[in-house]
Amino acid sequence: MSDSALDLQQDAARLTARLVDFPSESGTEKALADAVEEALRALPHLRVTRHGNNVVARTDLGRAERVILAGHIDTVPIADNLPSRLDDEGMLWGCGTSDMKSGVAVQLRIAATVPEPNRDLTFVFYDNEEVAAHLNGLGHIADAHPDWLAGDFAVLLEGSEAEVEGGCQGTLRVHLRTRGVRAHSARGWMGANAIHAASPILQRLAAYEPRRPLIDGLEYHEGLNAVRVEGGVAGNVIPDLCTVTVNYRYAPDRDEQQALDHVREVFAGCGVDEFEVDDSSPGALPGLSHPAARAFLDAVGGRPRPKYGWTDVSRFSALGVPAVNYGPGDPKLAHKRDERVDTALITRCEERLRRWLTD
Amino acid sequence: MSDSALDLQQDAARLTARLVDFPSESGTEKALADAVEEALRALPHLRVTRHGNNVVARTDLGRAERVILAGHIDTVPIADNLPSRLDDEGMLWGCGTSDMKSGVAVQLRIAATVPEPNRDLTFVFYDNEEVAAHLNGLGHIADAHPDWLAGDFAVLLEGSEAEVEGGCQGTLRVHLRTRGVRAHSARGWMGANAIHAASPILQRLAAYEPRRPLIDGLEYHEGLNAVRVEGGVAGNVIPDLCTVTVNYRYAPDRDEQQALDHVREVFAGCGVDEFEVDDSSPGALPGLSHPAARAFLDAVGGRPRPKYGWTDVSRFSALGVPAVNYGPGDPKLAHKRDERVDTALITRCEERLRRWLTD
Repeated sequence: MSDSALDLQQDAARLTARLVDFPSESGTEKALADAVEEALRALPHLRVTRHGNNVVARTDLGRAERVILAGHIDTVPIADNLPSRLDDEGMLWGCGTSDMKSGVAVQLRIAATVPEPNRDLTFVFYDNEEVAAHLNGLGHIADAHPDWLAGDFAVLLEGSEAEVEGGCQGTLRVHLRTRGVRAHSARGWMGANAIHAASPILQRLAAYEPRRPLIDGLEYHEGLNAVRVEGGVAGNVIPDLCTVTVNYRYAPDRDEQQALDHVREVFAGCGVDEFEVDDSSPGALPGLSHPAARAFLDAVGGRPRPKYGWTDVSRFSALGVPAVNYGPGDPKLAHKRDERVDTALITRCEERLRRWLTD
Repeated sequence: MSDSALDLQQDAARLTARLVDFPSESGTEKALADAVEEALRALPHLRVTRHGNNVVARTDLGRAERVILAGHIDTVPIADNLPSRLDDEGMLWGCGTSDMKSGVAVQLRIAATVPEPNRDLTFVFYDNEEVAAHLNGLGHIADAHPDWLAGDFAVLLEGSEAEVEGGCQGTLRVHLRTRGVRAHSARGWMGANAIHAASPILQRLAAYEPRRPLIDGLEYHEGLNAVRVEGGVAGNVIPDLCTVTVNYRYAPDRDEQQALDHVREVFAGCGVDEFEVDDSSPGALPGLSHPAARAFLDAVGGRPRPKYGWTDVSRFSALGVPAVNYGPGDPKLAHKRDERVDTALITRCEERLRRWLTD
């Protein structure tokens, strides 16, 4: 076995440490992608394909259902927190332990140890998740080889502390602008104050009552918030422009267009002169009513939670594949210098996924 | 006569050109102050004193009233607009023509040609008016030699297109801050939005009805305006701070404390967490009911106007000396590259002041 080879016979916690000590900041994933590909090609029950530094492996057993296990292999920049270190309490420390090489280790262990799963499996290892959306490897596969991502249900092994997080909320950011006329503030009546004109917008925001819809048994929680307000020219000038930037986080029973229509409706009659969409990403339905998802929930146990933030489960949803987050990492520790993962959760994730796929 | 000497026998328009061609950007007034002092010392009816680059000359005829004619000798930076140039229509072009060497020329001409005025006269020539308030020469004289500024009435020869502008409005700028609690916008309910909390402040501003009080026959016009609003951390964060900066321009029947009390009262109950005064300068009463002022108005004619902006007449007012602006310059052209002055207005100012002081 060469220095760069991955030994998939060791348990998932040890394999996590091995992966963490194989640095792969976004944009530098090639060596790790090579090692993952080599290890998978050594498994005769899998068919392996590759696109850039994205590696996909699949069984073809003619099962009634196909499920996808996906994870990104890149990390944020190393923050003087490598090599990894295991402490006396079973915590493994280092860059990428939670986000998300522990999840990748679980994928690789399932790939190596479940040669005859009860559902056909597709393993997806992708790059550039931690950087701009247009670089995201999962998106590149979806564009170039959408058939590689066909399936009935997907599990994204992003950190969720080994609890199922279903679907995710969408996010829409809009600039609302009011216009006025500049004047010296000593003769304010010769101008028109754009900041004063924004008053109805803030009133509407302050009075807004967010929805909390129940979807597939999960209670979502929407929100409409100003995230920025800017206006002003100088200390003695009536301002001619004010911009309120609002962020609408919406439950996945609304699509992007419905979200946009809702925000337009909320601010109708508020004197908005310009309405500019700054950013929009749809949510994802949890899809927990699908048979594969029900069996998954039964196997892993616990009570599923809604995912309020946005993750790549939304990409699967957009491809028509219901998806959930389920991984050993702790999302609160992602991107931190003291990032770590509880190795007991790595083991638990591996065991429960194996139970689901072999029962 | 040396190269630097000023010939006070030429008319005020020619003298203006001479002064304009004697550069004196703020901080470099010494040579011009020397020349002014030398010219005044040659006049036996005046007693001349000096503090720094500030020159004061006075008659001591034991008249019943004393009036002050004041002007600053500095200019804003030269903008490739020197030497001066007189065009065919009698416009004199160049840095300082309007603001305010034409006024200084009128002061010098009155000093030289009215040896026995009907009111005792004090001429004040001061430096650093165009820069930070603490450098202002008039303020330095007031601190070091308040007796030099004693008088019943003052005329500041700042540009007013040869019309009387009475008193000036005060200005107060306050930062109104609202505080909240940061949170990720995907879980907005875990935070408290400081921008939403600013909504009552903008409502109060939008609904505000400014006063328009009549003082000494002049109608003032107040204003309360947001001049800046700032808040926001990132596109996905509930902001924990919002600052609305308001500027109150108030008529001179209110003093600084009354202005502050008024602004506090306007925003009472609006949820302001911090109230910080950023800037405050009192207004100045026009004092047009004083006998010297009435005689001045009769002599110069026209209909007095209120001064909405802030000028050094406020310093005189603070010293107990009612003051007005009356000068040949055009304030709209001050600080501009194409600054110029109508020489007909220089002559008119000189003649009317002479009539007032000799009738």
